[in-house]
Amino acid sequence: MIALSRTALLIFLLLGAGCGQEPSSEVPASSAPRPKAAGAPGSVLVAYWTKNGNTKALAETVAEGAREIEGTDVVLKAMSDVTAEDLARCDGLALGSATHFANLPGEAKTILDRWSYEWQVDFTDKVGGAFATGGDVTGGKEHVVVSLLLYMLSNRMILAGPLHGEGPRSWGEMGASATTGEVSRGVQDEERQSARKLGHRLADLAMRISRGDK
Amino acid sequence: MIALSRTALLIFLLLGAGCGQEPSSEVPASSAPRPKAAGAPGSVLVAYWTKNGNTKALAETVAEGAREIEGTDVVLKAMSDVTAEDLARCDGLALGSATHFANLPGEAKTILDRWSYEWQVDFTDKVGGAFATGGDVTGGKEHVVVSLLLYMLSNRMILAGPLHGEGPRSWGEMGASATTGEVSRGVQDEERQSARKLGHRLADLAMRISRGDK
Amino acid sequence: MIALSRTALLIFLLLGAGCGQEPSSEVPASSAPRPKAAGAPGSVLVAYWTKNGNTKALAETVAEGAREIEGTDVVLKAMSDVTAEDLARCDGLALGSATHFANLPGEAKTILDRWSYEWQVDFTDKVGGAFATGGDVTGGKEHVVVSLLLYMLSNRMILAGPLHGEGPRSWGEMGASATTGEVSRGVQDEERQSARKLGHRLADLAMRISRGDK
Amino acid sequence: MIALSRTALLIFLLLGAGCGQEPSSEVPASSAPRPKAAGAPGSVLVAYWTKNGNTKALAETVAEGAREIEGTDVVLKAMSDVTAEDLARCDGLALGSATHFANLPGEAKTILDRWSYEWQVDFTDKVGGAFATGGDVTGGKEHVVVSLLLYMLSNRMILAGPLHGEGPRSWGEMGASATTGEVSRGVQDEERQSARKLGHRLADLAMRISRGDK
Repeated sequence: MIALSRTALLIFLLLGAGCGQEPSSEVPASSAPRPKAAGAPGSVLVAYWTKNGNTKALAETVAEGAREIEGTDVVLKAMSDVTAEDLARCDGLALGSATHFANLPGEAKTILDRWSYEWQVDFTDKVGGAFATGGDVTGGKEHVVVSLLLYMLSNRMILAGPLHGEGPRSWGEMGASATTGEVSRGVQDEERQSARKLGHRLADLAMRISRGDK
Repeated sequence: MIALSRTALLIFLLLGAGCGQEPSSEVPASSAPRPKAAGAPGSVLVAYWTKNGNTKALAETVAEGAREIEGTDVVLKAMSDVTAEDLARCDGLALGSATHFANLPGEAKTILDRWSYEWQVDFTDKVGGAFATGGDVTGGKEHVVVSLLLYMLSNRMILAGPLHGEGPRSWGEMGASATTGEVSRGVQDEERQSARKLGHRLADLAMRISRGDK
Repeated sequence: MIALSRTALLIFLLLGAGCGQEPSSEVPASSAPRPKAAGAPGSVLVAYWTKNGNTKALAETVAEGAREIEGTDVVLKAMSDVTAEDLARCDGLALGSATHFANLPGEAKTILDRWSYEWQVDFTDKVGGAFATGGDVTGGKEHVVVSLLLYMLSNRMILAGPLHGEGPRSWGEMGASATTGEVSRGVQDEERQSARKLGHRLADLAMRISRGDK
Repeated sequence: MIALSRTALLIFLLLGAGCGQEPSSEVPASSAPRPKAAGAPGSVLVAYWTKNGNTKALAETVAEGAREIEGTDVVLKAMSDVTAEDLARCDGLALGSATHFANLPGEAKTILDRWSYEWQVDFTDKVGGAFATGGDVTGGKEHVVVSLLLYMLSNRMILAGPLHGEGPRSWGEMGASATTGEVSRGVQDEERQSARKLGHRLADLAMRISRGDK
């Protein structure tokens, strides 16, 4: 009963509000999450900060995974090209970065700070996940992933990671990463697997979590 | 179209399966998440590992916050008393622990390992959050919170934290914690606020995230 | 025997090289650590990034603690005012920062990246410690402390934290921090204790670790 | 005054007790660090918790690196075999573990808790480093490394990591790790490099940091 009436309400809201009316300003007043029909495909933004192209390559794989969920609208952009509209519109957000001294590069964090402080993007209930690349085996790639996850929790988001396996022997991961230094040139196949599954997971949850019904 | 047929499927599953048929075994075969009507109040398990009673006090506040969502079934237990059924049944899971040397006590982590390795609990899509207490100002309480969050991501869960404020000036937190050593005797009011909001947030999401429709 | 000849070598190097000949350039070629007589008081640089003055207040307490080791040369500066010479000269380095979204502000990390990438400061064997302030109880202050520690390990430094207590009941901490939001206005006395001990510890180790004898 | 009496006491204990007379009890009263001639080779304990043998393999490489510093006494043991005497005697300590759900296994942390709480080992000024193995690419190996480092800071130790390269283009790492799941069978050569350098670094610092002169 409840489910039905909620769905009806959502359909009403969607028809009444239209889908295409995006904020025209580059710096929108913190817009409330758009109501979305539960179960309708969501949109996923994959935003990356790359230096040598490795994080971009991993981001492309995350985007591929998101496209596996039929109907998902996937946007793939360098962090520096992301607009306030891109952020307001997305239901799922995958953030990825290169690793400088075991953390985000200052330039990447400066962009994230701007999204929150200056643009005042409302990230509430968006579904987030993280990925990173780095030249060293133990050089802080995971610390970048955790840093991005904590940025998203600090911005009121919901977090998820790649799912592996099935049934009782299945497990998850905190995100995706690739060792891309001299040790391992570029992103390896095994590393892409988690990236693809991360995108898949975020798109799946973006569809399932109805952000409008608060 | 998709939304409607999914809702129909859920109703069918709910009617056919019933709600009260819990696994009778203490160590269930990894049970699939129970389908639940979207929007129906969920159940939240608050599980804590306490030494001096401080983490238990914080856990009680998390439970209070969860009860603010009408109809939510809240179970509050010491980790050592939690059964496989408690874990299988909950939609939301708040884990909290004391801090020993900047991490979970070995005893607490041993319990968590058992839940996953021996009991093979299927945590997929349960909504999780974390809290911690510790005697020192910078003694690793946050590292415990992050450790619990990563445990939950490794077990395929979805994560969330307390929400603060409203509108453009609102923000979030990674979880809740309290400094409970000689410096600050017991849990302070300000620390309880985040704990209460953490419980509220998990109960709200447990209701909104329909775990059955995969 | 070995110990004696090493000490003799150090004395020779110190007499020959002089103590006051600092690099004249603002961006020195990665200078080798200056040989220093084992046991001679060291110099400690306390560098902070502050927004509202709270991190500066905590930094001042770290500096006080460093001055407790007789003869220690203590320099207290905002990160943005630190020169390559300041960095080359110090034996101990305490880094502190405000917390933005559970991590260093982008602006602070950008400064740290510059020290390493552009200025190519040789941090090898300098003794480091970290501190942070933040408005939230569980808002990422510890993540900032860990981030600063990992920055320093990535730059070949040696790490230490405040020491508390004495004898069998003594313990340590990862660094110092203060909750400075609405919850707790300014830095509290208890939080200053760890900051002071952090400075003390770094100055003590800077004196004891002879960086020249490699 | 205190320093003198402590030194006198230590000399007395050393002369009276000799070097080979270890405490007969398994749970010694927290022994003060032994004075050691500055520059004399130190002893390094490499303690590991292994499940499939991968962490043991990485530990062996850490031990190899420590032996590169001439005269260093290297002890390699499973954590469960380490005695209070092993811990009291070592100048350098490398801790390594397998990864269970993005953290130390409960069993490993229980051992570490025992060292501190029950045995009351005095770790003050011992030089520590960390390593980990895990089956997943982004499954928490780094979180294990950081957890071990924070355990050591909480126990008043000094931290260091592997050093790479030379001159202006040199850098460091937080520790060593290896991905040992289906993705990468066993420990790879590149992963061993950091492990060897970690052992080398700890042995070098154990020799250089004179733990007695406090």
